[in-house]
Amino acid sequence: MPELIRTRDAALRARAEKVVPGGMWGHLHAAKLPEAYPQFFSRGEGGVLWDVDGHRYVDFMCSWGPNLLGHHHPEVEEAAERQRRDGDCLNGPAEVMVELAELVVDMVGHADWTQFQKNGTDATTTCVTIARAATGRRKILVAKGAYHGAVPWCSPSLLGVTAEDRAHLAYFTFNDVESLDAAAKEAGDDLAGILISAFRHDLGSDQELPTVEFARAARRICDSKGAALLIDEVRAGFRLNAAGSWEGLGVRPDLSAWSKAIANGHALAAVTGADWLRRAASQVFVTGSFWAGAVAMAAAVATLKIVRRDDVPARLAQLGQTLRDGLETRSRQFGLSIRQSGPVQMPTLLFEGDPDYRKGSAFCSAMLARGVYFHPKHNMFLCAAHTEADIAVALEAAEHGFASVAAL
Amino acid sequence: MPELIRTRDAALRARAEKVVPGGMWGHLHAAKLPEAYPQFFSRGEGGVLWDVDGHRYVDFMCSWGPNLLGHHHPEVEEAAERQRRDGDCLNGPAEVMVELAELVVDMVGHADWTQFQKNGTDATTTCVTIARAATGRRKILVAKGAYHGAVPWCSPSLLGVTAEDRAHLAYFTFNDVESLDAAAKEAGDDLAGILISAFRHDLGSDQELPTVEFARAARRICDSKGAALLIDEVRAGFRLNAAGSWEGLGVRPDLSAWSKAIANGHALAAVTGADWLRRAASQVFVTGSFWAGAVAMAAAVATLKIVRRDDVPARLAQLGQTLRDGLETRSRQFGLSIRQSGPVQMPTLLFEGDPDYRKGSAFCSAMLARGVYFHPKHNMFLCAAHTEADIAVALEAAEHGFASVAAL
Repeated sequence: MPELIRTRDAALRARAEKVVPGGMWGHLHAAKLPEAYPQFFSRGEGGVLWDVDGHRYVDFMCSWGPNLLGHHHPEVEEAAERQRRDGDCLNGPAEVMVELAELVVDMVGHADWTQFQKNGTDATTTCVTIARAATGRRKILVAKGAYHGAVPWCSPSLLGVTAEDRAHLAYFTFNDVESLDAAAKEAGDDLAGILISAFRHDLGSDQELPTVEFARAARRICDSKGAALLIDEVRAGFRLNAAGSWEGLGVRPDLSAWSKAIANGHALAAVTGADWLRRAASQVFVTGSFWAGAVAMAAAVATLKIVRRDDVPARLAQLGQTLRDGLETRSRQFGLSIRQSGPVQMPTLLFEGDPDYRKGSAFCSAMLARGVYFHPKHNMFLCAAHTEADIAVALEAAEHGFASVAAL
Repeated sequence: MPELIRTRDAALRARAEKVVPGGMWGHLHAAKLPEAYPQFFSRGEGGVLWDVDGHRYVDFMCSWGPNLLGHHHPEVEEAAERQRRDGDCLNGPAEVMVELAELVVDMVGHADWTQFQKNGTDATTTCVTIARAATGRRKILVAKGAYHGAVPWCSPSLLGVTAEDRAHLAYFTFNDVESLDAAAKEAGDDLAGILISAFRHDLGSDQELPTVEFARAARRICDSKGAALLIDEVRAGFRLNAAGSWEGLGVRPDLSAWSKAIANGHALAAVTGADWLRRAASQVFVTGSFWAGAVAMAAAVATLKIVRRDDVPARLAQLGQTLRDGLETRSRQFGLSIRQSGPVQMPTLLFEGDPDYRKGSAFCSAMLARGVYFHPKHNMFLCAAHTEADIAVALEAAEHGFASVAAL
């Protein structure tokens, strides 16, 4: 396989190591990726990315979600620039906040109102706070292994977290109605809400779309107990269904948390809610220095209008299906068994018999060397700037990837 | 007093009321200000702000802190634009993250390393998490009434918050060594850290700079117990002393939380820390979708270089002293007793015998009508784009303000 030269990346890693603990933090830390992966990037354009050593990649991580329409999307950036010329972070919101709120409420099926934040974690935390305030109860049910953010009440790590931070969380298994019923029963009269990811996108395992039965059970429990159904749309939002990822199931939540793709890479998050939670939402104290920032909101207005106008989820589904079919065919040609899961717009590819992701790493490293950025164990993301030609490039690179795995 | 026409603001408030709970959230909600204040803004330039009805204000809230150098600062925005042309939210950080981290570590007295986030609350929460991870202990001491963010563990409101969210907080009184010693004794072997605002800037009360005795006591307790001293610089950072607000006291913290002014209005926060906390900082899981965003980092590099080059804190101190002296003189001319407190770069003005802020509101409303944006009970902020002429405008408006109070 062609070897990627990483002189500049290595130099930056060495400098970063001195001034940033571990050289980087969180989900963007390249230490969690195969050795061949770069840590530092110099440029993005559409669905393509360049690392600091000048290597070009057709990118299927899309900034881990935010890149929905392509980097430097002309309409989004023009809207952002227009707002920027007036003002961004002022003593209060700009008119665009109202425009965005009206658009979100119009687009999202269950939304009677919305509020804006900066991080996905801000949105999930706000949802939980509103549910507790509205119900006067404490228990929140979450799926085992689900990711809802990176603060003590929900972080995947327990380091620096106290037991009390999670005193009122209780757990069920995704898509398991029985376990959900049992958790709700256990919470009894103290059930404030059930928080569920739009689909099961746990790291390193097969992804699962919610079954209609499971979604209805969650709705039924919340209705019967006067609790709130919270959907975490942070990762999936606007890629599966612009009106809400559960719209196709015929089940509507009471609160949803959104972020990542909402402003095509500009930092923004949102909570949407039903009318019965409006009063509580107006009473809890949630805020941030930059939460009324107008430029990200202008970018979000442009992004969401394009999502609706161009039916971006449908376009991503079409591209994603071509990718999935092509990967399936090629893996078979190499006599390999792969498992592709999750919605095709956010595909996950795992190898059979690959508990340590050795096959996945070999596959992805080979693809990377041929200019395609895949992830060996996290769900990936398509963007609307991807073309059929990009998918073809990915499939050609995948042949080298599968060959590498077959040679292990 | 001239009445400000608010047709457009009123129309936007009415629209917002329908799609945003209460029409707005958090600290930027105009409901917390006298009636005359606008909710929506259309433009910012330097230290001046326009509301959506076209009224112009010399602005002494400066976006509640972020506006340090003036809106649309040419050097900051040029740096941001240069980075934007390459890329912002990519699959990992850009080179500018290293440049910024090196600059922060170079500038901030106690900093051996740094990490970046988006909200001030992200930074304070991360500090607490790192302190707990490093010490393996749980208790965090905080000052009664101090503001450290807007999530359940620290929100000024208890609505939607459970008792367990604050199970391991214990309280002392700012500048009261005895109460600090007592709280530390009570925490015993479980003391993870002491979290203190750079100065006491509680809403609606006189501000207090920390005494040397108090700062040394906090340091002594942390040293003797192996706990971490955490300074919340979110509000004060880079306005009092670019190396850290406590540098003049000769006391250095172990961890500091920064945000607001760090990137002159671009959404960014930072944690800085001492070497003994580096390992814990590299191990806790903290992350956000936009935390590696390169544009805000480029803006921060430009902002911090200007802060250092131009000694912005000294410039703000000079302007702030002129404002304070002028307000004092003029209040006396009207036979009024005012209390000005806090550092002059972040002044707080309260009236004697004004428990319901009726005098403060009349004063600020009259100033607003004359094109000066003051706050009746929160600390205010100067920015480097303010001029001597702006201060003169404020002092002239203050005469009308004091006349209004004298006429009550």
